[in-house]
Amino acid sequence: MYDPQVSLRFNIITNEWVIIAPRRAFRPQDFRRTDSPLVETPAYREDCPFCPGNEGHAPSEVYRLKAPGGAGWQTRVVYNKYPALSHDIPYPVRHNQGLKYSVDGFGIHEVIVETPRHDMTLALLDTHEVEAVLATYRSRYRACCEDPRIAHIIIFKNHGERAGTSLVHPHSQLVATPVVSYQVADRLRTMEDHQEQSGRCLACRMLAEEIEDGVRILQLTEHFVAFIPYAALSSFHLWIYPRKHRARFGDLTDEELEDLARTLRTILRKLHYGLNNPDFNYVIRSAPSHCDEEDFHWYLSIVPRLSRAAGFELGSGMYINASLPEESAAFLRSVELPEELLAPTQSGEWEIVKGS
Amino acid sequence: MYDPQVSLRFNIITNEWVIIAPRRAFRPQDFRRTDSPLVETPAYREDCPFCPGNEGHAPSEVYRLKAPGGAGWQTRVVYNKYPALSHDIPYPVRHNQGLKYSVDGFGIHEVIVETPRHDMTLALLDTHEVEAVLATYRSRYRACCEDPRIAHIIIFKNHGERAGTSLVHPHSQLVATPVVSYQVADRLRTMEDHQEQSGRCLACRMLAEEIEDGVRILQLTEHFVAFIPYAALSSFHLWIYPRKHRARFGDLTDEELEDLARTLRTILRKLHYGLNNPDFNYVIRSAPSHCDEEDFHWYLSIVPRLSRAAGFELGSGMYINASLPEESAAFLRSVELPEELLAPTQSGEWEIVKGS
Repeated sequence: MYDPQVSLRFNIITNEWVIIAPRRAFRPQDFRRTDSPLVETPAYREDCPFCPGNEGHAPSEVYRLKAPGGAGWQTRVVYNKYPALSHDIPYPVRHNQGLKYSVDGFGIHEVIVETPRHDMTLALLDTHEVEAVLATYRSRYRACCEDPRIAHIIIFKNHGERAGTSLVHPHSQLVATPVVSYQVADRLRTMEDHQEQSGRCLACRMLAEEIEDGVRILQLTEHFVAFIPYAALSSFHLWIYPRKHRARFGDLTDEELEDLARTLRTILRKLHYGLNNPDFNYVIRSAPSHCDEEDFHWYLSIVPRLSRAAGFELGSGMYINASLPEESAAFLRSVELPEELLAPTQSGEWEIVKGS
Repeated sequence: MYDPQVSLRFNIITNEWVIIAPRRAFRPQDFRRTDSPLVETPAYREDCPFCPGNEGHAPSEVYRLKAPGGAGWQTRVVYNKYPALSHDIPYPVRHNQGLKYSVDGFGIHEVIVETPRHDMTLALLDTHEVEAVLATYRSRYRACCEDPRIAHIIIFKNHGERAGTSLVHPHSQLVATPVVSYQVADRLRTMEDHQEQSGRCLACRMLAEEIEDGVRILQLTEHFVAFIPYAALSSFHLWIYPRKHRARFGDLTDEELEDLARTLRTILRKLHYGLNNPDFNYVIRSAPSHCDEEDFHWYLSIVPRLSRAAGFELGSGMYINASLPEESAAFLRSVELPEELLAPTQSGEWEIVKGS
């Protein structure tokens, strides 16, 4: 039976054709999680290496941020206990034989502990605390940028079991590699091509169009725009882009960082209250080191994991989105957030106790 | 700690850098499934729409193959009951507004029932029966090729829950779309570039190198080569390629089809007995309709799902393979298959009862 709502949409950033096939008689709120993810989690666990007091059980510390006037730490960065790659290689050598190309397994793999509280989620932290997390990302991003062995830096977060987390304590990861990950290399090529053809940044054009269309916009602030892409790869898949052209996450000014903290927090709260604390992944896609400023536009991509990967996608490699991006956006816009106890905003500067 | 076995390898067909990080002290046989997937499955179920006698409960039939001399059917093809796309659109119209590109939701979505037996797996069918499945694929592939609305055809199979199957009865799927899926469009571009630069097919070169190296080869027959790629995206990820340059799956001759049936069956049996009936996906990647013969080389990719997707991959979008391709290949080569009761080979031609 022909359903005019079903179509194939092209995602201009990822180059994917996405099958947009909204489930009949299914409303956005039907994507709400029905099990209860908020089981009793204690604020502190003796056996958690990320809880305050247990710092000795975690691998060695790289960075530590102290709250203004606070006694303990607010965020910490430690090496990953089971790193995918090793940072103990003075110079990663490239190898080639015929069609076989490889490079020594060099890489930096860090864990960012987002808060001392074991039972928190990023959505429930206050703006100032989210800012501390983003400031930590930025510090580590900038520090890695100075390492000549590194071509590319990825920062990502897994929230919940379907997103692949085994550790409950809120944390993110940073991976820096001597090569550029395919997803970024590919998006970069697309943007370079567009720049060459049109003399314009593809993402800047897309943002202008999205803001004009309005229907998929979630949040528009001075410096950021959060929206569900026209060809969202899955239900509630969403992007946060800086409105000014910026190739690199590390170039965030303090003012922009504060704005991003508010924006990200609002979006995560919309997901938290609207969809009942769904599992999600997010990733910051930023330009590789060698990239010209004009050829990339960094962004943060959030992928709620509302169901297990479907067989169709696993088998065919094509994406199906079971919801209409415009409807998902309208729903998230309509989610009312609980009023907040307006605690006096903390003032003063975060203090970097260790690292840079 | 530096581990010389860890490296980043480049996959020349998919363009991905794969982190090859073999788990220490982990042997290939440790990837064996430890739960028992072979629960009691009856040979027939009254409520299964794919079992013989229940044909009326399945959506309308497109194709039916009868065994030589047999009474019932050997394979059937029916429309998918919940198709992702609709075949009821006379002409799929393209739409464009600014950067938004879409096409009407036209597509063909069929289910191939591989055997009348509810409790079978492809690995346990005899060669002649696997040949019937592949002959069915080929018939449907060719029929779809003749539809001018179709740009691209994907045939895939999901085996087991981790591969996204909900239906137990052995089946595969065919999806034909008016656009080319990204994964194929991307591989096509890589191969076109290589053809233009070197005047040679990238896959043909790779196969020559793999056969010379030998260490990753699983099976080498007159017409096919099965191997674990140098930069396999995950443990036991493997490819079956035709040795002669062929852009399209549909161009298989009868002799090649017979050879492919033997090769595929051997590989699936190696996985079945060596890893204890692991869940897996496979997909046939074949050239789009418009593609020049020289610019693509079709292949079948098998992805065993030995564990749930890891957080690192979900978050970062980079692949980690926890095993060394050379060791996985050596292990699969060493798997001894149970001796078979050599039933007299069925002779005679399969009879297409319905469809083409």
